[in-house]
Amino acid sequence: MTKIIRISAAEVEEVYCVLDKIGCLGESRASGYLRAAYSDEETAAMKFIEHLALECGAKSRWDKAGNLALEWAGETNKFVETGSHIDTVPRGGNFDGAVGVVTGLLAIRAIRKSAAKIKHNLRLRIWRAEESSTFNVLYGGSKAAFGLLDEAYLAFTFQGRTLAEAMKSQGADVEAVRAGMRMINQTEIDDIIAHVELHIEQGRLLEASGTDVGIVTSIRASKRYRIVLTGDFDHSGGTPMGKAHRKDVNLAMAYIQVALDTYCNTCLSAGQDIVQTVGVINSSEDFNKKNPLIFSNAIPVISGFGYFSLEIRSNRLQTLNEYSQAAEKIIDQVARSYGVGVEIQLLTSGKPLEHMEANIQEVMEKSAAALAISSMKIASGAGHDTAVVGIQKTSSGNTIPVGMLFIPCKDGKSHCPEEYASYEAIAKGASVLGTGLLALANS
Amino acid sequence: MTKIIRISAAEVEEVYCVLDKIGCLGESRASGYLRAAYSDEETAAMKFIEHLALECGAKSRWDKAGNLALEWAGETNKFVETGSHIDTVPRGGNFDGAVGVVTGLLAIRAIRKSAAKIKHNLRLRIWRAEESSTFNVLYGGSKAAFGLLDEAYLAFTFQGRTLAEAMKSQGADVEAVRAGMRMINQTEIDDIIAHVELHIEQGRLLEASGTDVGIVTSIRASKRYRIVLTGDFDHSGGTPMGKAHRKDVNLAMAYIQVALDTYCNTCLSAGQDIVQTVGVINSSEDFNKKNPLIFSNAIPVISGFGYFSLEIRSNRLQTLNEYSQAAEKIIDQVARSYGVGVEIQLLTSGKPLEHMEANIQEVMEKSAAALAISSMKIASGAGHDTAVVGIQKTSSGNTIPVGMLFIPCKDGKSHCPEEYASYEAIAKGASVLGTGLLALANS
Repeated sequence: MTKIIRISAAEVEEVYCVLDKIGCLGESRASGYLRAAYSDEETAAMKFIEHLALECGAKSRWDKAGNLALEWAGETNKFVETGSHIDTVPRGGNFDGAVGVVTGLLAIRAIRKSAAKIKHNLRLRIWRAEESSTFNVLYGGSKAAFGLLDEAYLAFTFQGRTLAEAMKSQGADVEAVRAGMRMINQTEIDDIIAHVELHIEQGRLLEASGTDVGIVTSIRASKRYRIVLTGDFDHSGGTPMGKAHRKDVNLAMAYIQVALDTYCNTCLSAGQDIVQTVGVINSSEDFNKKNPLIFSNAIPVISGFGYFSLEIRSNRLQTLNEYSQAAEKIIDQVARSYGVGVEIQLLTSGKPLEHMEANIQEVMEKSAAALAISSMKIASGAGHDTAVVGIQKTSSGNTIPVGMLFIPCKDGKSHCPEEYASYEAIAKGASVLGTGLLALANS
Repeated sequence: MTKIIRISAAEVEEVYCVLDKIGCLGESRASGYLRAAYSDEETAAMKFIEHLALECGAKSRWDKAGNLALEWAGETNKFVETGSHIDTVPRGGNFDGAVGVVTGLLAIRAIRKSAAKIKHNLRLRIWRAEESSTFNVLYGGSKAAFGLLDEAYLAFTFQGRTLAEAMKSQGADVEAVRAGMRMINQTEIDDIIAHVELHIEQGRLLEASGTDVGIVTSIRASKRYRIVLTGDFDHSGGTPMGKAHRKDVNLAMAYIQVALDTYCNTCLSAGQDIVQTVGVINSSEDFNKKNPLIFSNAIPVISGFGYFSLEIRSNRLQTLNEYSQAAEKIIDQVARSYGVGVEIQLLTSGKPLEHMEANIQEVMEKSAAALAISSMKIASGAGHDTAVVGIQKTSSGNTIPVGMLFIPCKDGKSHCPEEYASYEAIAKGASVLGTGLLALANS
């Protein structure tokens, strides 16, 4: 029989009442949030959670990359972990990341209060700097914790400050990060028997199907490109139509997009896991400042310079790699067929977590069932810190066993002030998390 | 037998040596020019030509819109005219417009020097403000001369100054322009028996075929649009592919462009005169400043806001209108099929000059032949002041008889510092113009 842990919406509200004020850009949630990576606001939010954890018997540990680990003693040297990040994108919401930290705290507190016997240690992790839209670095804190943060990223800037300066301002040891020091050593890795993160879905599948909790089966990774095209600025009236006369960047971009869309549909029909997005066309303020040629594009002129972003995501590494190769080829061929020069710049490249630990999925499914909370299996479209944790190798050559839970968010929105999950929805997620963690902690 | 007028490259060079210094943005032509509409530089260039004209017996007249007419007396009350504009686009060249003024002066001077008997009066016109890329007003000076400048344009700005302020700074009577006063009255219109403008081709047809002079058969007009699209900014990882889930502005824009391109090709195959250009996608500095939402587009976000320009040109009014209607429908339908909201803004709309005066074409053709200068019939892809002159009605209900000559320009380039026509090429054009004007002046 599964021992049940149940968290109420009132408990969630109690924590959110304070957290709602940290990094809020105005009077209320509607103004959005900025708790930037390695900012005073991010630290303040972490310290608030630390305070609540210490109140219920945790020990606290800050690593040299500024990540926080809150630990509750068990009877073995093994650990069952949960946690997420608490930073936000600029003008973001208070749920992406934060719900994982809040539910983690509430779940462990409730386990402790339940007076149930707990075999293994429990740990709540709060990672720094998960969001990429501040310093253009993905999973900054968790990568640094495992000694995996590329040194080059330390020079990236947000609001005029380098990541290194921001880290230093929050007491992190930049030189240790630069040296690739492992803040989480091999023993600590070996002792983790389960790592489970709760997060908002950032999609509409749970909401649309009326399901309370998603049991995540895989986490997609992405490749991100910038494609820069060079044609000829020519008079729009004096130059006849057709490829023989015009080297038209805008037209080439359109045909490239349509060719990529067609290829994507073929792969989807073949059952492959792929999403593909051209998010930016000529609209990066920073890139335009560095490339004023973009402003030579004018209504009566054939377009001679332009660029777009391409992001490809998959939960299968082979699919991601094969698709990306094919996409690069399509871009090159179509651009050339329009007489347009093309430069394909790979900006970032990640590895998907192809399979989450089967046992953790099973435990979470049973926990939901025991609570009469509806659940479904779901692939994660977005990336998460857990994808970094889940590729770390133990001494025996396996990887850390990881799992994730999703809760629905309104209209699937995230990274905006409209991002929203109700206290009831969060409480349901926390209950499944708590029930599951307790089962794992006694396994 | 055609009486020949021949202008040498040396004569062209003599005028250009001075003109090259007026409004030049650096030490040499390679830096480009800015003689903005109603600027001190435009006026200085006009005064330089006025000075040369006065030296060879002209009378000078500035109208209330600031245009200049230089007149040489004949024996009737009829006039044979030539001329063009002398303003430039920002970072433009010294040939678009200027060659028409310089060759007009040299042609009339040579006619006067030839001691040939001249029946009708001769006139050289220098129009203000032909270029649209300063105040976003097309044919500002010639339209104002005929009382046709839309009052609203007077409030348009360039470099922080309104068109009205710029006009005033150069001594124009803004209130007269605003009131739609006709600076060129009905008698003056009725007395024009021929108006001929020489211009660079702004295309590559003459250069490619090795022809010295183009005899223009028609002048295209354009319709210009801005299309603004609104979709949903959604997470690029959490949102599945497909129209059911994504309202993707960038993808809709691509499919719209391709649909327009397909339609254009169909019309071209059917023998219609159409060019179509999407010159701007998200890259207008001014529009972006007023619509910062454009910067919410980001690599990991489905595009929720964007815009593009569409310019359609034809030398047939019916074609222009029918095509534009069809294009608007295509844009609307494709955008809607992607769940994207669309606003189609018509920015400007002109009327093509469908046929240039047959007699003038014939005279110019014969003049070229007499000079052993190669010529070919050519449609004007770009718009010109002559399109404004050519729609003015005489008392008898006809329109002013107009013609145009083109000379080749290097690689078809214009509106850039690379814009170039050799003194030899200009001299050949001037010779055809002079020979033709003399024939017309004695007709």
